[in-house]
Amino acid sequence: MNAKKGFVESVRSKKPLVLHVTNNVTVNDCANATICAGGSPLMCDSIEEIEDLVRISSSVVINIGTVNERTFEIMILAGKVANDLGMPVVLDPVGVGASTYRNEAVKNILDSVEVSVIKGNGSEISFMAGSKIRTKGVDSTVDTDSSITAKLAKKTGGIVCMTGKIDYVSDGKKTIGLCNGNDVMDKVSGTGCMLASVIGCFIGACGADIDTTTAAVSAFNIAGECAVSNSYGPGSFKPALFDYLSMITDDDIKKNMRIVK
Amino acid sequence: MNAKKGFVESVRSKKPLVLHVTNNVTVNDCANATICAGGSPLMCDSIEEIEDLVRISSSVVINIGTVNERTFEIMILAGKVANDLGMPVVLDPVGVGASTYRNEAVKNILDSVEVSVIKGNGSEISFMAGSKIRTKGVDSTVDTDSSITAKLAKKTGGIVCMTGKIDYVSDGKKTIGLCNGNDVMDKVSGTGCMLASVIGCFIGACGADIDTTTAAVSAFNIAGECAVSNSYGPGSFKPALFDYLSMITDDDIKKNMRIVK
Amino acid sequence: MNAKKGFVESVRSKKPLVLHVTNNVTVNDCANATICAGGSPLMCDSIEEIEDLVRISSSVVINIGTVNERTFEIMILAGKVANDLGMPVVLDPVGVGASTYRNEAVKNILDSVEVSVIKGNGSEISFMAGSKIRTKGVDSTVDTDSSITAKLAKKTGGIVCMTGKIDYVSDGKKTIGLCNGNDVMDKVSGTGCMLASVIGCFIGACGADIDTTTAAVSAFNIAGECAVSNSYGPGSFKPALFDYLSMITDDDIKKNMRIVK
Repeated sequence: MNAKKGFVESVRSKKPLVLHVTNNVTVNDCANATICAGGSPLMCDSIEEIEDLVRISSSVVINIGTVNERTFEIMILAGKVANDLGMPVVLDPVGVGASTYRNEAVKNILDSVEVSVIKGNGSEISFMAGSKIRTKGVDSTVDTDSSITAKLAKKTGGIVCMTGKIDYVSDGKKTIGLCNGNDVMDKVSGTGCMLASVIGCFIGACGADIDTTTAAVSAFNIAGECAVSNSYGPGSFKPALFDYLSMITDDDIKKNMRIVK
Repeated sequence: MNAKKGFVESVRSKKPLVLHVTNNVTVNDCANATICAGGSPLMCDSIEEIEDLVRISSSVVINIGTVNERTFEIMILAGKVANDLGMPVVLDPVGVGASTYRNEAVKNILDSVEVSVIKGNGSEISFMAGSKIRTKGVDSTVDTDSSITAKLAKKTGGIVCMTGKIDYVSDGKKTIGLCNGNDVMDKVSGTGCMLASVIGCFIGACGADIDTTTAAVSAFNIAGECAVSNSYGPGSFKPALFDYLSMITDDDIKKNMRIVK
Repeated sequence: MNAKKGFVESVRSKKPLVLHVTNNVTVNDCANATICAGGSPLMCDSIEEIEDLVRISSSVVINIGTVNERTFEIMILAGKVANDLGMPVVLDPVGVGASTYRNEAVKNILDSVEVSVIKGNGSEISFMAGSKIRTKGVDSTVDTDSSITAKLAKKTGGIVCMTGKIDYVSDGKKTIGLCNGNDVMDKVSGTGCMLASVIGCFIGACGADIDTTTAAVSAFNIAGECAVSNSYGPGSFKPALFDYLSMITDDDIKKNMRIVK
């Protein structure tokens, strides 16, 4: 598949079922972002049914935003079953670095599950790459450079996407810098979580590689640019983001994607 | 009460307290849909207080969207207490057919609780009616005919509402087909859940029969038609849906309701 | 600090981390209200990490909207750790009076935790002040007078904010009546919860006293007034509320704040 064409079309025609084991803060936004990107969302909160649900899905999104003892077990099992089936897994390590519990949850997930794509902000990716960074809750407090992304990708053997003023996507060998998007996206809870869901849609339909992930990030951020031009603040931005995400085309991505290096 | 007049007015004047034991994905939408329809929402997540809360309510909505071992017990007790009090119960069997656990949860609810109204999409109602249908997650994959709805209504002895291009409402004897609404409603997470909440409002105020359920479906779908004419996509549709739902009148329903057979 | 100037500016420059142990209905609204008011939201659902998270926070918001046995324990520990650190705690006693379980949860929280600000509606504050009031779910059924607010403030030794047509804020000695805001705010689920989050931002940045709490209430309600003038109903009101809350200034508060006595 051509890296700059066909991803959105593929997602919309395949309508991948994206299974989420996620937090209770942004779960509704994740569901809507999945639909708008062309997928079908499925959310699970029960260890009893997670295996059945993974088996009918196209990808799994694990988000630790409000992880607890109970949901952690669901995440691990979801990841293991997905691995057995060769199904791609996205990990959103929300707020890693902010508590010992969260750090161990992420460590245990990486020890038990082969993660296809890790998506985090500067603080989260830096922490996971081994940098001595102090996370302030769930918001990033650092501006980091592209090398951090490649470092973590080499460490995990998967794709890493680090969001920030420049978004970096790396597979450990190649790193792509993207500068679409805008500041308003940081003023809305859950944009990071939604991006993980959109990545889940794209890799569920097109496979987990650097080009697919880059296309997902670009689709989301270009929709965000359109939305900010048609809204008045963070409140009206979110409905507009969903509107534009549901309308985005491969051609929009091709024309508007800004690669920095 | 006249089937085409007075339902909305009754809901708004009685302001029924609609108790939800529901999923964590669309729970906020259910709360807002309840308020806009004229009810007062109450959400419970604790077995310790469910009996007290049912006792002050007018109807109970059970939604299995993210059911687990813990919340299943709350659902069962909520239903039983409601039955003891002669209070109507709505069941939204979200995603039934997608996992053995979900199938058994629905079976156990129906074995323990007398459900006044079941509201589901084509896949869900077909599965419950005994058809060999494979659900793809929580979205319907089948177009079904009116006989399925009547079949399940006969089986359960309650009202069944099956949503789709045509929405069917049946009490086992009579089946009404409705064709208000639009495709955008399928592009927004939670419209099905919201409809169950609106039905909860209507039957909480006016009693659980085919006419009340039909009025609730029509109110919701006509509000949806107005909303789609005043929005740009699934994002801006949802706020508009709440706006129009809060403004709908019995006269709007009378003038715009489209019955197909 | 001057009571009518500088609060908003302080919040925005300090960006306090506001830790929530809250309900699953309005948790997303609380996160967005926190961001719009100038804070950074952090939501916790695990007893394992609550202590770590309180230690990096500026204030704690406890909301019992969907409290259960598990989350109750998190609330208590969050409150105790905050007390040890001298960190302000907001309590939103959602629906207290509606169930024995909820009443005992609130009693136990007050017995174990020193609460800086209690924010509730007329029913909730009246119940807590010892009046014989019957709560109908989570909506207030009473119009109460300012003396109730002062009574509860004297009882707890903290600040009490009772919302209603007139909002009263009292520290037990002085009581301020405020009449900004509008009826549409009652037609949207979660406005009360959001206000508690905004109070969490203000007291996290500026300390928990009557002037800080009054400023938070005014900021929220004046944003609500602007939002109602620029929306069509409860659906479009919420995005507009976030837009205006994110733009509000100390000058806006100074010019528009309406004190009734």
